[in-house]
Amino acid sequence: MDLISVEKALETILAESVDFGTEEVNFIDSVGRVLKETILADRDFPPFDRVSMDGIAICSKSFEKGQRTFKIEGIQAAGSAQLTLDNTINCIEAMTGAMLPKNTDAVIQYELTETTKNVVSLKTDDVNYYKNIHKQGSDYKQGSPLLAKNILISAAEIGVLASVGKDKVLVAKQPKICIISTGDELVEVQETPMQYQIRRSNVFTLVALLKRLNLSADTMHIKDDKTVLYQKIKQVLNEYDVLLFSGAVSKGKFDFIPEILDELGVQKLFHRVNQKPGKPFWFGKKGVKKVFAFPGNPVSTYVNCLKYFYPWYQKSIGLNIEQPTAILASDFEFKGSTTYFLQVKIDNKKGHLIAYPLTGNGSGDLINLTFADAFLELPSVQNNFTKGESFPLISYR
Amino acid sequence: MDLISVEKALETILAESVDFGTEEVNFIDSVGRVLKETILADRDFPPFDRVSMDGIAICSKSFEKGQRTFKIEGIQAAGSAQLTLDNTINCIEAMTGAMLPKNTDAVIQYELTETTKNVVSLKTDDVNYYKNIHKQGSDYKQGSPLLAKNILISAAEIGVLASVGKDKVLVAKQPKICIISTGDELVEVQETPMQYQIRRSNVFTLVALLKRLNLSADTMHIKDDKTVLYQKIKQVLNEYDVLLFSGAVSKGKFDFIPEILDELGVQKLFHRVNQKPGKPFWFGKKGVKKVFAFPGNPVSTYVNCLKYFYPWYQKSIGLNIEQPTAILASDFEFKGSTTYFLQVKIDNKKGHLIAYPLTGNGSGDLINLTFADAFLELPSVQNNFTKGESFPLISYR
Repeated sequence: MDLISVEKALETILAESVDFGTEEVNFIDSVGRVLKETILADRDFPPFDRVSMDGIAICSKSFEKGQRTFKIEGIQAAGSAQLTLDNTINCIEAMTGAMLPKNTDAVIQYELTETTKNVVSLKTDDVNYYKNIHKQGSDYKQGSPLLAKNILISAAEIGVLASVGKDKVLVAKQPKICIISTGDELVEVQETPMQYQIRRSNVFTLVALLKRLNLSADTMHIKDDKTVLYQKIKQVLNEYDVLLFSGAVSKGKFDFIPEILDELGVQKLFHRVNQKPGKPFWFGKKGVKKVFAFPGNPVSTYVNCLKYFYPWYQKSIGLNIEQPTAILASDFEFKGSTTYFLQVKIDNKKGHLIAYPLTGNGSGDLINLTFADAFLELPSVQNNFTKGESFPLISYR
Repeated sequence: MDLISVEKALETILAESVDFGTEEVNFIDSVGRVLKETILADRDFPPFDRVSMDGIAICSKSFEKGQRTFKIEGIQAAGSAQLTLDNTINCIEAMTGAMLPKNTDAVIQYELTETTKNVVSLKTDDVNYYKNIHKQGSDYKQGSPLLAKNILISAAEIGVLASVGKDKVLVAKQPKICIISTGDELVEVQETPMQYQIRRSNVFTLVALLKRLNLSADTMHIKDDKTVLYQKIKQVLNEYDVLLFSGAVSKGKFDFIPEILDELGVQKLFHRVNQKPGKPFWFGKKGVKKVFAFPGNPVSTYVNCLKYFYPWYQKSIGLNIEQPTAILASDFEFKGSTTYFLQVKIDNKKGHLIAYPLTGNGSGDLINLTFADAFLELPSVQNNFTKGESFPLISYR
């Protein structure tokens, strides 16, 4: 048997990661993409001495001299040019977000004042220099790097991009992906199958799994006809960067895919991995084009996409994802020297991720995937897995 | 002061959840939506005795009688009508996914056979009845409920929907949301601000936070002019189900929003919550229309959207999300009887979620949000938080 280990399979796949380059997108469309430029502060953060409470701005020297009532000279609104306090015994009302008026250096919030006509009396004896003022450049100086390359853009980064005026942003380009089903037993979702037929489902599961990565893909179905398969796959290999197959890589008489891929110059890097489920997994390449041919069983396709395609894609776009782990809730036994992907339901108990086994009815059991929310990767070198031990977690929710 | 507690604020908001009804969408577009119908098995799972290994199908009686060589009568392909084994001393080749041929009840995989011309010899003495056959209805019987109402549709559920032929599926309808910024200090992202101006960013952060919920929203900016504000907000209240404001709810002279909302018949349910950051948060309603008016500071808006809008929306669409927790990595002190939302970086250590404090430069520090990945909610009744204690976790990545 030409079985390879899960570790070797993953290593082989990661060695085939591909840099698909970069592209510019509107910043608001960059959520979920990977940043490919360093974002610098275009000016100081904050860009001016910024009032951070609504109140009155005074010159603290006057306060220190014992002054407690201040005549209002004017109002400094947010979004207005800086006013100047003409006489330092007076004050200027100042709003949150406004520039601190010239000749003032302290802001006392309204809650600590009382205003009669045009005069404000302080109800506090505690006024510090630069209180309620967010000082210019105190967070970041102009030119400081704010966001590094190769981070995944979330809502937090969107705020930064907007602040520094990056309305266009450079992100990792995404590969063109085609997901292909084969098999004459498959009919479309809206069709009523004959007794011996079933509906196509794995391609859509894969589409949805890729959507979690913010990736879109085209889909295609090809009949079990060698000539047609050859022509169509040849064409798809030309047009796409990555091909994902579901099914048609086991040892059956009608499983032509490995043979056709060989004829088309796609080099097999491995076929069949020492794992359960998902063993008859085929992976190959033709230059920068990569072919992931997953087994046909729903759970096999599912776990292999998560275990192999996900990290391949993440490495390709420059993302470094740490491997999470979870703690086994009960003893579990799996015989044989095979990596076992155990379906589990995760419960967060006081910060501990507890994994409850949900074995289901095997690799054909699509429904069990909906009860579980992750796989626990149980290593091949072990047969008895003890409650409390932690193992790598492959989560899909 | 009219401060209310975080617990009371959340309770008030959750009591205002709204059922926005249902709508039908294409199943492939239902990823991330909430299912609003029970999905039943349209037929048995599997729908027929399904061959689960490529090999030969035989009548096990012949095997039991000692027979070890079988003449091939034909090939049963996946997706073909059921064949019949004419003579039970013969066999039929059968492919994975195919119907089990009539008069056969065992499949021996190719790996355990040897074929010479038209005759197959077995290399095994271990043939069990229904080995390598996935029996009809063994997973689920026709009519069984497969997916329950009110679950979040992920890739696993997409596979089930496809399998049972649900090309259209009933999901929770989403509210129409408008995110509104106000303040004359704000300019557009592509503009170069004057010294006293800054770019709009909170609305885009909110757009991105809503996108995490699979929600889209319109955005709008309104100048600090009372008449314009009144007219525009009146119009938005008419057209949208939910209004999210950023800024303009503190005590400043130009913060007209609470006043205008009052004039427009929006009932204030609370204003100002005993929390840091995010205190000047205003929440109100006009019938089924809800208004979340967040404070203007970036971190305040951010945490309030996660803490209040998220659970309100999830309850509205029928989702029941369990509150995750994480474990404090080091001792932390926060004085005052105020709920504190501590920014943290989460590390998964052998299944334990460890939260490392990253306090940053306060509620104006947008950049710190990009270093952290969650907030830890530290209760108001406590001042000293000890390493190893677990607290509610509000994650945003």
